[in-house]
Amino acid sequence: MSGAAGGLFISLEGIDGAGKSTQSRLLAAHLRGLGRDVIETREPGGAAGAEDIRKLLVEGDPDRWSPETEILLFSAARRDHLERTIAPALARGAVVICDRFADSTRVYQGAARGDLRDLVDDIHARVIGVEPDLTLILDMEPAVALARGLARQSGEDRFEDMGLPFQERLRSGFQALARDFPDRCAMVDANQASEAIAQDIARIVEARL
Amino acid sequence: MSGAAGGLFISLEGIDGAGKSTQSRLLAAHLRGLGRDVIETREPGGAAGAEDIRKLLVEGDPDRWSPETEILLFSAARRDHLERTIAPALARGAVVICDRFADSTRVYQGAARGDLRDLVDDIHARVIGVEPDLTLILDMEPAVALARGLARQSGEDRFEDMGLPFQERLRSGFQALARDFPDRCAMVDANQASEAIAQDIARIVEARL
Repeated sequence: MSGAAGGLFISLEGIDGAGKSTQSRLLAAHLRGLGRDVIETREPGGAAGAEDIRKLLVEGDPDRWSPETEILLFSAARRDHLERTIAPALARGAVVICDRFADSTRVYQGAARGDLRDLVDDIHARVIGVEPDLTLILDMEPAVALARGLARQSGEDRFEDMGLPFQERLRSGFQALARDFPDRCAMVDANQASEAIAQDIARIVEARL
Repeated sequence: MSGAAGGLFISLEGIDGAGKSTQSRLLAAHLRGLGRDVIETREPGGAAGAEDIRKLLVEGDPDRWSPETEILLFSAARRDHLERTIAPALARGAVVICDRFADSTRVYQGAARGDLRDLVDDIHARVIGVEPDLTLILDMEPAVALARGLARQSGEDRFEDMGLPFQERLRSGFQALARDFPDRCAMVDANQASEAIAQDIARIVEARL
């Protein structure tokens, strides 16, 4: 796979309920207002096959898959998404706004569900190889985010059902990622009104355009 | 994952339509007649989650997935199958008869669909790590096997739909595997009546019990 030649690849990361999909939508509208070609996408999913894999991952019992099987399924969905949606959009020069990408696998399966970060990184290097140009980490109080995520009753609650201590490990994991990749990652305070969060994000993104 | 401690792990391999499922059933009956605890299983599938992944792999258009995505999906299904079905059965001392295992991925995705054998082997080493004690390779004329496989009209024809030249590459791939792993692999002439094939297989297996 080629890298992000031409376009700009932005991912939004953070725990469930932190407001990623809302901010993805607001950022897309803002960039379109600036005249940019923008696609909004999300993981797991974002391509026909990857959406089929998504159903296996986000529905059902929390113990439906082991962390190792999950890593393979997320990587399969990501490879399909990259081949069929992300890489073609970047190649034509678009801005790709992606609600979750490889950092979610690093944190969810690599850290919070077990000590499997090496496995995540090895498979990523073999079959994905691409990183976002910019990763916005929406940082939020886990108890508030979890209540919001569960209130959606989306039927896609498999990870929310892993409970509050799990969400707290996720938050720590994302904070650690931001420290490990300071050039690529920007922390955003998501404990604000969504308009204020959107302004913070617009400022960070415009500096990269 | 632990290895095959206790039981005996037998895989059947070969092109579509070579008679693997019939021979799996006949071998299981024969070994049960000898008083052995036997489970019959198959890939992709063989556990609840792995069967869900199977549907994604064997149905739909031939170009539904790239070879790389397929390798990840087969590996995910295999990991689930190994954790939930194969490893527990071997641990209690059973004979596991498995219709396809990792060799199918080595041949289908690693050789016949592209030059991806290194990727197959790397992922296998990271997340599977187990090989059968004995692999029976059912060798058969591809044109005959393909006609038989398609005649089943199983709705699981995604690989058969890749055509005869593909089946011929598969046959060569399985023959090469038998040369590469002579201690583990035994070639069986599957261009015979099924009773004769079953007798050949029984002879090979009894020598390993």
